[in-house]
Amino acid sequence: MDEFMQAAIVEAKKGMTEGGVPIGSVLVHKGRIIGRGHNQRQQRGSVVLHAEMDALEQAGRQPAAVYRQSVLYTTLSPCPMCSGAILLYGIPRVVIGESRTFMGDEAHLHACGVTLEVLDDPTCRELMARFVREHPELWHEDIGE
Amino acid sequence: MDEFMQAAIVEAKKGMTEGGVPIGSVLVHKGRIIGRGHNQRQQRGSVVLHAEMDALEQAGRQPAAVYRQSVLYTTLSPCPMCSGAILLYGIPRVVIGESRTFMGDEAHLHACGVTLEVLDDPTCRELMARFVREHPELWHEDIGE
Repeated sequence: MDEFMQAAIVEAKKGMTEGGVPIGSVLVHKGRIIGRGHNQRQQRGSVVLHAEMDALEQAGRQPAAVYRQSVLYTTLSPCPMCSGAILLYGIPRVVIGESRTFMGDEAHLHACGVTLEVLDDPTCRELMARFVREHPELWHEDIGE
Repeated sequence: MDEFMQAAIVEAKKGMTEGGVPIGSVLVHKGRIIGRGHNQRQQRGSVVLHAEMDALEQAGRQPAAVYRQSVLYTTLSPCPMCSGAILLYGIPRVVIGESRTFMGDEAHLHACGVTLEVLDDPTCRELMARFVREHPELWHEDIGE
């Protein structure tokens, strides 16, 4: 598997080990990871640090040109908030582990010109399937339901 | 003026005093402010804590039902990221100080059924006009340009 999706899965597993939502993400600029993150709802009580947001935050303040040459990897289809962050910073390409557990705002991203690649990866799917089964209340909270 | 927009302006002015981007926001549930925030790019080096996100974060983890009965007040038109957060949590109504300095994703919010009220408030406009004049690089960074 792609080394960057592998790194996003490592982040998702960290989240699982910490008792959190097992979603991970990395931001990659010119073949180098500049930010890594995972969902922080349970760990830090955060309602904004989804995995993608955490990866962006860990990457720190970057010039617009960096975002525009970056690829965001995420183990799960990006929700409307994370999709909005992708659009704000003009990230042109997103690689998605899976979209079966949750279909994010892929249609809007596509309509706005973002290139999406969905891997339908079994590890990503299994992490989420187990989590949703074991912690449905936390999962629903995380997607505003 | 509406007491809640006034509270958002107080937040924006705090941001200005701290040397940051002067945008403020409050989240109001059934007539009571449950979260207050302002842009944290300069102060905390955050790329995700726009004012609206900071207000959501300060409100903490809330049940879906609370967001769906809440109103978000923001001194400036919400960018794609903040608009996405509004959609994720199903906040039905947004009151916006002004949209002249920056037009956010109002069309998308409207298309998704969110009620928007734009006040075109002179205080909100003046805060941003001065800031954009004095710190154009910080402003452009904040909107991914």
